[in-house]
Amino acid sequence: MSEGDADRVRDALLARFGESPPVDASLAGIDELARMAGHRTHRRYTERAVGADLVRLLCACALSAPSKSDLQQADIMIVSDPAKRDVIADLLPDQPHVRDAPVFLVFLANGRRFHDLFARRDRPFVNDHLDAFFNSTVDAALVLASFLRAAEAVGLGCCPISVIRDHAATVSALLDLPERVIPVSGLCLGWPADTPPITPRLGLDLTIHENRYDDGEIAARIAASDRRRAGRMPYRRQRDEARWGTAPDYGWSEDKARQYATPQRADFGAFVRGKGFRLD
Amino acid sequence: MSEGDADRVRDALLARFGESPPVDASLAGIDELARMAGHRTHRRYTERAVGADLVRLLCACALSAPSKSDLQQADIMIVSDPAKRDVIADLLPDQPHVRDAPVFLVFLANGRRFHDLFARRDRPFVNDHLDAFFNSTVDAALVLASFLRAAEAVGLGCCPISVIRDHAATVSALLDLPERVIPVSGLCLGWPADTPPITPRLGLDLTIHENRYDDGEIAARIAASDRRRAGRMPYRRQRDEARWGTAPDYGWSEDKARQYATPQRADFGAFVRGKGFRLD
Repeated sequence: MSEGDADRVRDALLARFGESPPVDASLAGIDELARMAGHRTHRRYTERAVGADLVRLLCACALSAPSKSDLQQADIMIVSDPAKRDVIADLLPDQPHVRDAPVFLVFLANGRRFHDLFARRDRPFVNDHLDAFFNSTVDAALVLASFLRAAEAVGLGCCPISVIRDHAATVSALLDLPERVIPVSGLCLGWPADTPPITPRLGLDLTIHENRYDDGEIAARIAASDRRRAGRMPYRRQRDEARWGTAPDYGWSEDKARQYATPQRADFGAFVRGKGFRLD
Repeated sequence: MSEGDADRVRDALLARFGESPPVDASLAGIDELARMAGHRTHRRYTERAVGADLVRLLCACALSAPSKSDLQQADIMIVSDPAKRDVIADLLPDQPHVRDAPVFLVFLANGRRFHDLFARRDRPFVNDHLDAFFNSTVDAALVLASFLRAAEAVGLGCCPISVIRDHAATVSALLDLPERVIPVSGLCLGWPADTPPITPRLGLDLTIHENRYDDGEIAARIAASDRRRAGRMPYRRQRDEARWGTAPDYGWSEDKARQYATPQRADFGAFVRGKGFRLD
């Protein structure tokens, strides 16, 4: 607990949201708040190895996260086989860190272990609907976020690789994922080689609500966030100018609208259903 | 960084998993690993208030979590209106902490903000399929887990209330959630009044895999986890003995099979679709 950590929290939140709630420097654990507020995605790593014991320690800490109804429907896959890593890296040529990171993990939603308890007892599985998919997905995300906190606590840097879902069937076959086990996200892990800037986010007036969802003047509020981001970290290039032209005020919302202007993962539902999850 | 923290990590992991990877006492941030490994669900709180500024600070730290494609599809609802809190507490009579906790929050998956960017630009939303639901759900879970880490860092205790999904439509109406915004989980927050024991979990041999999913001897391995749990923290009562009788070796797997022996949230898919998400 120190004034320095409180300053780090404030500075990071100002950079990210354009505002910071008051920070009490006497708070316990404020060094962890400073790491959280200062979170960056790290895509460049030093050559220093990350020991297998440390990876397992971080996994165990992450798997200590809460789990829906204690069903424990999240698993972690450590991809240490260079040949398997290469298959995934080859699928993602735009993300060289997938090949270069010292460690690569895949976080799994596991609806299988719980489902099979019933078969072994000769009892029907009467909850074979969206809930089974939803609960295991949420569990996997809780473990992923917790892993990230553990990794950043010890000084490691991470880059979640959600785009493995663009190749869900290939990744699933590569890792021998059985029925009702699906990849939610990959994760690159290593000792950071640089300190990227903090990416500005939408204002907290958009993402924190009190007692009722507030959608008022949404366009103006998003535009204000866009302008704040443009002032602090303008996009280096506009996506697909051949199609969309050059926008005079290119911000987060135009960038995201362009990024998702073409269909992506339209087959993900078919993959999930093919893995045995029902989405009714 | 201290030997004391390393011992806390080891002891907590031994209690939870029956094993601990080696812990290097010189690791930076090992106090955060100790808090993570020692995570408990807190359902009893002192009367000490949790200041509104502190709640907003924790929200801002949590909203600094990674977000799929930077789409920022998670929101936090602070339920400070006692009348609204009472409505939720009345729905959950088995969970008195929902009424008693100093603070109650609801974490939201928000597929709306991103979807509406397209309408405002007169462009079609060409990704209206499972991906939109999945991404916003995962974002909400990432923010929930991150909030929990922030809260525990400063000494607060939490209890996620996922069972609000049993009343998703009522909670949604209460909080004025519009189309494509759904509640993922509630959260009770307060200063802990006690230190519950660590709940044992499935062994790490079941939840950490390397290079390929390993389902071998699954029944025996789960049985071993059941025995370990029974030895350390036996269930105080068996669920629904009138229906299932008294099991000689009642463990996690029998408890969960009984807990989900009746349909739960079978209407959740209809609710989600009714909110405008497509699950194709």
